Amino acid sequence: MKTRAAVAFEAKRPLEIVELDLEGPKAGEVLVEIMATGICHTDAYTLDGLDSEGLFPSVLGHEGAGIVREVGAGVTSVAPGDHVIPLYTPECRQCKSCLSGKTNLCTAIRATQGKGLMPDGTTRFSYKGQPIFHYMGCSTFSNFTVLPEIAVAKIREDAPFDTSCYVGCGVTTGVGAVVHTAKVQPGDTVVVFGLGGIGLNVIQGARLAGAKMIVGVDINATREDWGRKFGMTHFANPKVVGDIVPHIVQLTDGGADYSFDATGNTDVMRQALECCHRGWGTSIVIGVAEAGKEISTRPFQLVTGRNWRGTAFGGARGRTDTPKIVDWYMDGMIQIDPMITHRLTLDEINKGFDLMHAGESIRSVVIY
Amino acid sequence: MKTRAAVAFEAKRPLEIVELDLEGPKAGEVLVEIMATGICHTDAYTLDGLDSEGLFPSVLGHEGAGIVREVGAGVTSVAPGDHVIPLYTPECRQCKSCLSGKTNLCTAIRATQGKGLMPDGTTRFSYKGQPIFHYMGCSTFSNFTVLPEIAVAKIREDAPFDTSCYVGCGVTTGVGAVVHTAKVQPGDTVVVFGLGGIGLNVIQGARLAGAKMIVGVDINATREDWGRKFGMTHFANPKVVGDIVPHIVQLTDGGADYSFDATGNTDVMRQALECCHRGWGTSIVIGVAEAGKEISTRPFQLVTGRNWRGTAFGGARGRTDTPKIVDWYMDGMIQIDPMITHRLTLDEINKGFDLMHAGESIRSVVIY
Repeated sequence: MKTRAAVAFEAKRPLEIVELDLEGPKAGEVLVEIMATGICHTDAYTLDGLDSEGLFPSVLGHEGAGIVREVGAGVTSVAPGDHVIPLYTPECRQCKSCLSGKTNLCTAIRATQGKGLMPDGTTRFSYKGQPIFHYMGCSTFSNFTVLPEIAVAKIREDAPFDTSCYVGCGVTTGVGAVVHTAKVQPGDTVVVFGLGGIGLNVIQGARLAGAKMIVGVDINATREDWGRKFGMTHFANPKVVGDIVPHIVQLTDGGADYSFDATGNTDVMRQALECCHRGWGTSIVIGVAEAGKEISTRPFQLVTGRNWRGTAFGGARGRTDTPKIVDWYMDGMIQIDPMITHRLTLDEINKGFDLMHAGESIRSVVIY
Repeated sequence: MKTRAAVAFEAKRPLEIVELDLEGPKAGEVLVEIMATGICHTDAYTLDGLDSEGLFPSVLGHEGAGIVREVGAGVTSVAPGDHVIPLYTPECRQCKSCLSGKTNLCTAIRATQGKGLMPDGTTRFSYKGQPIFHYMGCSTFSNFTVLPEIAVAKIREDAPFDTSCYVGCGVTTGVGAVVHTAKVQPGDTVVVFGLGGIGLNVIQGARLAGAKMIVGVDINATREDWGRKFGMTHFANPKVVGDIVPHIVQLTDGGADYSFDATGNTDVMRQALECCHRGWGTSIVIGVAEAGKEISTRPFQLVTGRNWRGTAFGGARGRTDTPKIVDWYMDGMIQIDPMITHRLTLDEINKGFDLMHAGESIRSVVIY
């Protein structure tokens, strides 16, 4: 079949909207009509050539929502007509990681996914006979895409595509970091570094979990209003307050119970750790750092009881937890609508990247 | 009163055995006759001038066991005749840290303890009229010492002093890191870097907790026999196996569930983290690093599910947990006797430091 897609033919070049050939689903695979897709910093990171493992030509996009249109042999968990979110973190429920009960990082198809291929080692996309790579196992910048069965989460049918697509990455990453990874408890003190889309979702996750004090940190003063919309109780701008670590320690009466880095800046990651409370404070790295950058601290910080952790896809098990986050949205427990600042057509997709680079969007969504 | 003590008059000089004046216990304090004391690397670290906060002249020593001889006004939890272990990590049961239930790092007397003083801001020791500082709130290199009531753990009276003194630091630090901080579960895989006294206690803690595989790592081949005595199942010498991280990852089928650094070397701390299992592996820093040294890693290590933590005094609440570790010893659940490699008189205390620096002792104990 044919599908319209935005193709990244090479790094540092705008996406091109073309018609691709798409092979139908093989055994264990499903064909999904993508109805909407967010444009995420990770797509830009790859497109900008910063990801040393980035592959081209490829169909980027990993934050979508759509409808199953066809299933391959042996597929039992979804059927045509089901509404689904593609999962860059699949959930096979059979591998050592899934069965551990301690991580969401399913390893069933990690090797081929990292190579831009389906689990059988081939690609379903091609352009004029030339194979086009998949991206993060999703490739939602295509109106139709093929996914492994274990990489789709079935969601309720009354959830709008243009907002629930954001659950495919940003919402789950931020809310999940609080709920699944940190397991913030009522009354806890939470500090969030970086009030972009992820940071705002950390804030609303903290509010959902009953945090008492939610401190947002950003060097962009205009983010204060955004933070307060989602439950932030205090704002700290390092450009105004100066050295941020002692400021936070004082503000929180000893340090944060939980801090989150949503900046990807390794210096900020250190501050996020060091503003945690002695004895138990836990800092969680969400942001993806530039290649080659490292985090550092004095080991004394750990010996005196701080914990340094990380999270990917908010610690959410793709098929199990993602649908629940959609439910939370539909039940009004979390908000998504105000975060979708721009709605674009596929032809306007490069504008979405421009808005993101300029810091003018929280989330731009392409609607097919 | 008078007490014989080994005094550190200044850094980098042998201890001197002298007779000190000792004021009796004030309100909330107890006088303890130290019956035995271990010589720990931390004492050497201070004596060697490596601790920038080290104070002189002082009475070092923090790993003792003895008998309460006198109590000050208001002391209710111990009485003359009680056998006790002095606690450099006290347990007031009233401060924010104690009440959190999440840390053993009581802060009740931290400020004065760090200044070498009793909680009222004065010292009980003097020599020819000159004040002598306390050390880590213990000063067990003195036959008699004064301690805050909250800094003594009452232990059973049938426990020998010359072995149970080791519970005052090394045993609790190693066993507690496994049991209290990591909370190792039956069937877990544990890797221990550094098979000195702390590392051996980590090993026996892991055995006690039911670990399936206990890998010891040391560049000193003679430590293999020591490790096996306490439950080590596999030994890896980086000088033999080469790059230790991939070696451990392969040996443990993906990485350790828990790793422990008992070396104090920040490069080793990084290896300990990176040999942990993707998704859930937790590395715990026990060793005290040289001043100014930092730990580093790529944040990707955390984002893919590894946890970096630390422990002090094995996460043990001083008065609550230390007596239980003495019970475990007396009940044969852990061993201490084989680790006490040298018994010395107070006059021989400098020999104990020499043996430690030469790597010839696991633990030297001074018996009064």
